[in-house]
Amino acid sequence: MSNLKTTNQQWRIKRYEADQFTEMDDEIAVEMAMTIVVNGEEYATMVCSPCQLEQLVIGFLASEGFIRTYGEIVNLQVDDERGFAYVELTKQLPPEAQTRTKRFIGSCCGKSREFYFQQDMRTARTIINKETISVDAIFGLMKAFQRCSDDYKRTGGVHEAALADGSGLMYQAVDIGRHNALDKVSGYMMRDRITSRNKQIVFSGRVSSEVLLKVSKMGIGFIISPSAPTHLALKLAEDLNITVIGFVRHERMNVYTKSQYVLLD
Amino acid sequence: MSNLKTTNQQWRIKRYEADQFTEMDDEIAVEMAMTIVVNGEEYATMVCSPCQLEQLVIGFLASEGFIRTYGEIVNLQVDDERGFAYVELTKQLPPEAQTRTKRFIGSCCGKSREFYFQQDMRTARTIINKETISVDAIFGLMKAFQRCSDDYKRTGGVHEAALADGSGLMYQAVDIGRHNALDKVSGYMMRDRITSRNKQIVFSGRVSSEVLLKVSKMGIGFIISPSAPTHLALKLAEDLNITVIGFVRHERMNVYTKSQYVLLD
Repeated sequence: MSNLKTTNQQWRIKRYEADQFTEMDDEIAVEMAMTIVVNGEEYATMVCSPCQLEQLVIGFLASEGFIRTYGEIVNLQVDDERGFAYVELTKQLPPEAQTRTKRFIGSCCGKSREFYFQQDMRTARTIINKETISVDAIFGLMKAFQRCSDDYKRTGGVHEAALADGSGLMYQAVDIGRHNALDKVSGYMMRDRITSRNKQIVFSGRVSSEVLLKVSKMGIGFIISPSAPTHLALKLAEDLNITVIGFVRHERMNVYTKSQYVLLD
Repeated sequence: MSNLKTTNQQWRIKRYEADQFTEMDDEIAVEMAMTIVVNGEEYATMVCSPCQLEQLVIGFLASEGFIRTYGEIVNLQVDDERGFAYVELTKQLPPEAQTRTKRFIGSCCGKSREFYFQQDMRTARTIINKETISVDAIFGLMKAFQRCSDDYKRTGGVHEAALADGSGLMYQAVDIGRHNALDKVSGYMMRDRITSRNKQIVFSGRVSSEVLLKVSKMGIGFIISPSAPTHLALKLAEDLNITVIGFVRHERMNVYTKSQYVLLD
């Protein structure tokens, strides 16, 4: 059972419990970006947990069908500080493999945003002119969300995302893919010309950096989930002015970022 | 709250409960492939739930940064029977967008396998020479798996996948990404030259078609999960001779496919 540890990090949260907020430190799962360089060429960038990286690279190359045996790897060096893996294979990758998303880490508006993909850099937006929301409204939205989740209850196999306007749900999307459920909400807003002002996203799954970026691209300032966020998602949320509310369960919740937008009543 | 329904399908399962197996019908979430054709060119194929497809296409194009407004879509037709979406945009996609994975639906060995990606076609394997496993061994593996899941319990933010040999866990991988956790197990097996014979995968998340294909590529005949499978995963599992065991919780489990490999003692 080698190397099961992930590097969790501490994060200062506000926990709501027994009708009041308490500030405390909470442990959050770290998410990092790793770029795989094959025979000197950037091949792909993925987000992952910062452990077992050598196995990840080998398994990823096998899963993509580029290697069949470990012997096809001449050399493998993982730079876990900088998030790069350098692989030398006995063969060239097929030409179509050379066209993956290139890494992009930029700084924007003088801030050191951790964007890993150029399209995120182009499309993520900082939320301005945010309204506040009350603890009771958040519990109300979560209850409405879970009442609607018939499919999930019957099959246990789908994710759900909903658009809310503070007092109720406007649209609820369901999909076996977490990202698809969010894209459906985004497509609904765009097609039906719903503005992002004073809206919230309720989401059934974990709040990863990819989920957070999708919320940002929709221009929405709140994400409400019964589950946990990752550390990278929280760093992005701080930067993009998004309030992340997690573990909303049984009259309890954690407010991870921008808690000034969550009011006791 | 429009169109929340997904098309669930019935599947014949064997449920283990109160020390015995009972055959019954269970409702399973459907997973379909949809290919997005933009201005006459195939752009991407995704797997998704068969509902709210128009919103999905619009949101996906927005999330990828290809459209900013609904007005950039001149025409959008979804053929949900065949799984194609035809989009006409007011502009051309950038050249780097033209290189996504092409759809591939083939039949192999006279069977109508539903592979959507060419690399799956090349690398998925039918499992032969399978050993059996007992109900007690499955419960034992799940208990060991959940004992090890400290990270998950502390942060609630990671997925886990483990390699088992029937009597215990050999390696447990953790990652914020479900596919990464499985790739880490695959990389471990390859690097440490572990054969796939008489092994099982224990996995913390849902058994989607992508998860099932990763298990098949490792050459492993069992997947054991506390969660639910999708319908497409089960069809692939039937074809590839993989036993899918889901909802392993509190002395209960569902055996969805190839149940002749699961014994009462």
